[in-house]
Amino acid sequence: MRNDNTVTSASTALLTDQYELTMISAALRDKTAERQCCFEVFARRLPEGRRYGVVAGTQRAIDAIADFRFGPAELDVVSGILDPDTLAWLADYRFTGSIDGYREGELYFPGSPILTVRGTFAEAVVLETLILSVLNHDSAIAGAAARMVSAAGGRPIIEMGSRRTHEFAAVAASRAAYLAGLSSTSNLEAAREYGIPTAGTSAHAFTLLHTTADGPDEKAAFAAQIDALGVSTTLLVDTYDITQGVRNAIEVAGPGLGGVRIDSGELGVLARQVRHQLDDLGAHGTKIVVSGDLDEYAIAALRAEPVDTYGVGTSLVTGSGAPTSGMVYKLVEVDGIPVTKRAAHKETPGGAKAAVRTRRSTGTIVEEIIYPADSAAPDTNGLSATPLQIPLMRDGEPVADIPSLADAREHLAQALVSLPWEGLGLSHGEPAIPTRYVMSQGNTR
Amino acid sequence: MRNDNTVTSASTALLTDQYELTMISAALRDKTAERQCCFEVFARRLPEGRRYGVVAGTQRAIDAIADFRFGPAELDVVSGILDPDTLAWLADYRFTGSIDGYREGELYFPGSPILTVRGTFAEAVVLETLILSVLNHDSAIAGAAARMVSAAGGRPIIEMGSRRTHEFAAVAASRAAYLAGLSSTSNLEAAREYGIPTAGTSAHAFTLLHTTADGPDEKAAFAAQIDALGVSTTLLVDTYDITQGVRNAIEVAGPGLGGVRIDSGELGVLARQVRHQLDDLGAHGTKIVVSGDLDEYAIAALRAEPVDTYGVGTSLVTGSGAPTSGMVYKLVEVDGIPVTKRAAHKETPGGAKAAVRTRRSTGTIVEEIIYPADSAAPDTNGLSATPLQIPLMRDGEPVADIPSLADAREHLAQALVSLPWEGLGLSHGEPAIPTRYVMSQGNTR
Repeated sequence: MRNDNTVTSASTALLTDQYELTMISAALRDKTAERQCCFEVFARRLPEGRRYGVVAGTQRAIDAIADFRFGPAELDVVSGILDPDTLAWLADYRFTGSIDGYREGELYFPGSPILTVRGTFAEAVVLETLILSVLNHDSAIAGAAARMVSAAGGRPIIEMGSRRTHEFAAVAASRAAYLAGLSSTSNLEAAREYGIPTAGTSAHAFTLLHTTADGPDEKAAFAAQIDALGVSTTLLVDTYDITQGVRNAIEVAGPGLGGVRIDSGELGVLARQVRHQLDDLGAHGTKIVVSGDLDEYAIAALRAEPVDTYGVGTSLVTGSGAPTSGMVYKLVEVDGIPVTKRAAHKETPGGAKAAVRTRRSTGTIVEEIIYPADSAAPDTNGLSATPLQIPLMRDGEPVADIPSLADAREHLAQALVSLPWEGLGLSHGEPAIPTRYVMSQGNTR
Repeated sequence: MRNDNTVTSASTALLTDQYELTMISAALRDKTAERQCCFEVFARRLPEGRRYGVVAGTQRAIDAIADFRFGPAELDVVSGILDPDTLAWLADYRFTGSIDGYREGELYFPGSPILTVRGTFAEAVVLETLILSVLNHDSAIAGAAARMVSAAGGRPIIEMGSRRTHEFAAVAASRAAYLAGLSSTSNLEAAREYGIPTAGTSAHAFTLLHTTADGPDEKAAFAAQIDALGVSTTLLVDTYDITQGVRNAIEVAGPGLGGVRIDSGELGVLARQVRHQLDDLGAHGTKIVVSGDLDEYAIAALRAEPVDTYGVGTSLVTGSGAPTSGMVYKLVEVDGIPVTKRAAHKETPGGAKAAVRTRRSTGTIVEEIIYPADSAAPDTNGLSATPLQIPLMRDGEPVADIPSLADAREHLAQALVSLPWEGLGLSHGEPAIPTRYVMSQGNTR
């Protein structure tokens, strides 16, 4: 029962739900396992009040699919619940189908066919849990992060939320946040895995450490930090009295100090006071970093204040009220036959779908049109239309030119500019553009 | 920039914030790195309206600390931001201090000293991010799960939320949920790592798969599942029409069918209808499993209905509105001198602390008393008192008798019984018992 914390095998095959495997067992017995299927990932709705969603995690999902293999260790775990035929099938498993989807950094809206997985029932159904875990998490973080970036109006934001989420979710959260436009992360594993720029200041503990029998010695802490990291560092000035802290900081570092950080209190009032004080001390270039329970609303509320950089934590890694994206993975087509669940009020149109987004000549997007994948592109009312899906995997292999994390970051920045003006508002409302279904019989739903 | 999804090295050393390492660099230069320090993990408050918190993740944190080592791969990542002396120090790093804490499965309240880490500044500060990531995540899940278990009033709950959270957070969430009393999980990696019992039914996709040119064939899907898994399986009956689905299920399986699952609609109404129908069909032993966006309130609302088992997903893995626990890791003592931050309104008493919880002769707990770790136990007003911290690590090694996951599960079940009656209520309110500080000078704070 020891937890290794790191899974030493590279296999992702057990990061899934048991029922995916027992469904394969049943399908192998009645020969439906090999039927050609199409599964779609989509979200029925956006998080409450949000105007847009951001697709994130695509590259991680594709990598995880490549590592979805059952070796002896994985088979041993499931040997008690599966028959020998199923175990043999799993031992040979590799995904051989195709995947198309929205590129990372693309906006999505309710019903958008974010990912389309084609293959046999068995090879495609087994990826459900893993694909959803990655996309639901990463898109939730990116969606919140994009709003924070908009709220910051060009000022940089440092991601520093690792301690508020699962230790590996933290790494993916750093990646999603960077994709959405944050400037750097505190997380070192994110630096290793994704090359994201890192940043950091210091903790109150470092200042408190410099307490002696004679009492606190903030200046000693500041001097030590500057000795190690240079005057371009950022000193944390709110451990004791902020005004004295700023005075101590400039006294020790001189007016060339890189920055001061304020982590508590009324940040707007304090930022103004500290800016005045720094200017009075001749430290005109010393930047002010604020942190402490900031979300997109708090960031926006500080736009008129002399803040240079924001540090965000909890609200970023928890999706600012929407910690998951609610994406589902639904079977929509079997051997070319559209299928759909009919119970209650969860119906969505069956059949594999494609999507385009129309835009005015100004570049502003107008609507998303979802139509049968095997039909011609729909009428766009004379507007130009961008196809939204790109190839991601063919014959079980990732395509050569999947957009990189940097591409995704750039794509999202451009996509946000294309929103109608109310789409960037932080207030709760409807999706920024409507989704229109143009289904097989020409019906508009 | 490839994401391995699984960290092939067993090291946890980069699952941390950059500033932990730059603080060490600064402390090594001014010789404060070796000062003896005490850090405490605590939560300033419970999630909004919650009556108690549940400590979870302790064992995972201890395992992660044991794997916190800087090998060549880890040092390479940080070599650009650290000086040679710090890199050499990290290369030799292993934690050599001591850790005491609340046992896993223990209740906690605002201010409870959940974990106390003693060691040099450098060796203890560097564990901050990793310890908080684990405890903040796992305790958030366990706290939500415990409320669901109470709401279910003895009926079993299956954890099936993996797809709604990061793929590795899902494994830890399964563990925390099981600790809190859920009966099983859908997550296979949780079965491997922690020996948690697994469960599963099937997805709508499996029923939809059995569509032919002649239309849907729900009975074929049910027959296949029963052929593979036996009549004790649970059939998902709400893909098309629930009444017909139940009829089909019993027609195919006979009245000995293990269970039916309803995943959508008005679950209470449907459960009653389905129970009547099953009984009319002679399937008196067939159980009803309900799922679909259940949280503790929805579970409670179904208590009067003929539901046998609940399946929970999204709300479980997202902490039901509180996806993190807000625990912090604070330096409270340096070379025996109590230290505390003084800015704004974040003050908590300095100095290493111990805690007891008093209880009436009936077993009902009365208050938590926090007092200086080096003082005698406080006056308990004649009530019996249980010390809350136990040894977890000594000289950098885990102690031999750390409670197991099964122990933690049993401990929590007992602890919940000890709450005052209003403590188990789902409604928002104050912590179930007050926290009282009895600090060094005999002051009550």
